[in-house]
Amino acid sequence: MTAAEVEELIRAGVPMADDLGFKVDEVGQGYAHTRITFTERFIRPGGTISGPVQMALADASMYAAVLASLGKVEMAVTSNLSINFLQKPAPCDLKAQAIVLRLGRRLAFCEVRLLSGGEGDEQLVAHVTGSYALPAT
Amino acid sequence: MTAAEVEELIRAGVPMADDLGFKVDEVGQGYAHTRITFTERFIRPGGTISGPVQMALADASMYAAVLASLGKVEMAVTSNLSINFLQKPAPCDLKAQAIVLRLGRRLAFCEVRLLSGGEGDEQLVAHVTGSYALPAT
Amino acid sequence: MTAAEVEELIRAGVPMADDLGFKVDEVGQGYAHTRITFTERFIRPGGTISGPVQMALADASMYAAVLASLGKVEMAVTSNLSINFLQKPAPCDLKAQAIVLRLGRRLAFCEVRLLSGGEGDEQLVAHVTGSYALPAT
Amino acid sequence: MTAAEVEELIRAGVPMADDLGFKVDEVGQGYAHTRITFTERFIRPGGTISGPVQMALADASMYAAVLASLGKVEMAVTSNLSINFLQKPAPCDLKAQAIVLRLGRRLAFCEVRLLSGGEGDEQLVAHVTGSYALPAT
Repeated sequence: MTAAEVEELIRAGVPMADDLGFKVDEVGQGYAHTRITFTERFIRPGGTISGPVQMALADASMYAAVLASLGKVEMAVTSNLSINFLQKPAPCDLKAQAIVLRLGRRLAFCEVRLLSGGEGDEQLVAHVTGSYALPAT
Repeated sequence: MTAAEVEELIRAGVPMADDLGFKVDEVGQGYAHTRITFTERFIRPGGTISGPVQMALADASMYAAVLASLGKVEMAVTSNLSINFLQKPAPCDLKAQAIVLRLGRRLAFCEVRLLSGGEGDEQLVAHVTGSYALPAT
Repeated sequence: MTAAEVEELIRAGVPMADDLGFKVDEVGQGYAHTRITFTERFIRPGGTISGPVQMALADASMYAAVLASLGKVEMAVTSNLSINFLQKPAPCDLKAQAIVLRLGRRLAFCEVRLLSGGEGDEQLVAHVTGSYALPAT
Repeated sequence: MTAAEVEELIRAGVPMADDLGFKVDEVGQGYAHTRITFTERFIRPGGTISGPVQMALADASMYAAVLASLGKVEMAVTSNLSINFLQKPAPCDLKAQAIVLRLGRRLAFCEVRLLSGGEGDEQLVAHVTGSYALPAT
């Protein structure tokens, strides 16, 4: 699947991804690079992007990396997601780099790094791991 | 703080909670009972409530339990959140029961159970643990 | 399986459980109550029981709860384990209460509470969640 | 601190690390490379290195990376550890590559990759994230 196809599938299937303006920049075997464009609605007290927005981006990015690796597996579902919030993201676009750590028959394990800031000055703001239960084949 | 005050504070501060129609039913020292009312926008492929919606509810519920226990600590931020998705929630309201497992000086540890279905027929659909970094006092 | 059978199976199969003096007090459908007897070897700086000892107890306890629920499934393997260390356990016996939150066809999700101290004065010292991958049937 | 100093401090302070023959190969600002030498005692059913042994190595490796970055902070304690077991390690030495993702004032966040197999043929067998609570300064 191409980046555009992955983006369209996720935005069509997951309303929250659509609400957030989820974009897929690049995909390949085992990875996906994605982003959301900043809007005022993401803010929480302290002027930072809220945790749920970060988690939604991380989850959609894992899904993108799984789709990019396996093709269209709409019934894959997140089994576990664990996120460490490392520092407050600046009020700007948020990028995600998702990789598939291990693609088993039944579970795919992923890792996502959430990055804030412009090219060459990116800060790691959250680190996420998760597993996807794959449909029986 | 009362349930209404906690709800108002969270809905004012976290736009996503407001979007989801986050409600606080009951709070007390060390716990909060909350819910979101089902809408079609929560759905993902398979007819179930999406993972990000579940995570947003869990996060807001932990925050509610911390606020109920400590009073107004707006600058508390989620440090870690780990969720296990146990089964697909039905397309209906989703309730959350959050408790504070341990209130330390610097970190509050919480547990949240997400329940789906009507009174007397509730199913545990997700189990969440998380920690909140508390502002220095 | 009885508590004695579960204990024997785990101690025979997992050398570290045997080293720690792992004991199974009680098992039933969906749960296991276990313990380790304190020895000086568990200590780490600060006079508390080390994290790896707590994790080993939690892992063995989840395994006990799965065995108690499913019968002899030696090939079940831990897929994920997440532990929050809530407070330092006292230098005394450590008990574990493991429950199966959800028994699916392919994954079992468990929760474990680690308790320190004597009857009537127990402190929750760590909270653990984990998942077990079950062998295909 | 040098690799030898970090190794000595951890083996002196954490008996389980000493039991496992914990070795520190290399340390530097923000990282530590460590290993344990295989012995028959690590085995569990299926011929693989048990989960608790992997968790003990991961925990000691995070501690090594924190010590290497901050100097002697014996009172740092693990706050959270989350491990995904990706595949069964072969019955051979197990290496760990720990990095500090974020060093805050109060919490250090780490990531550890556990690798099995010889040079040039290493397999990622487990992925770990964790946080360390740092002593107040």
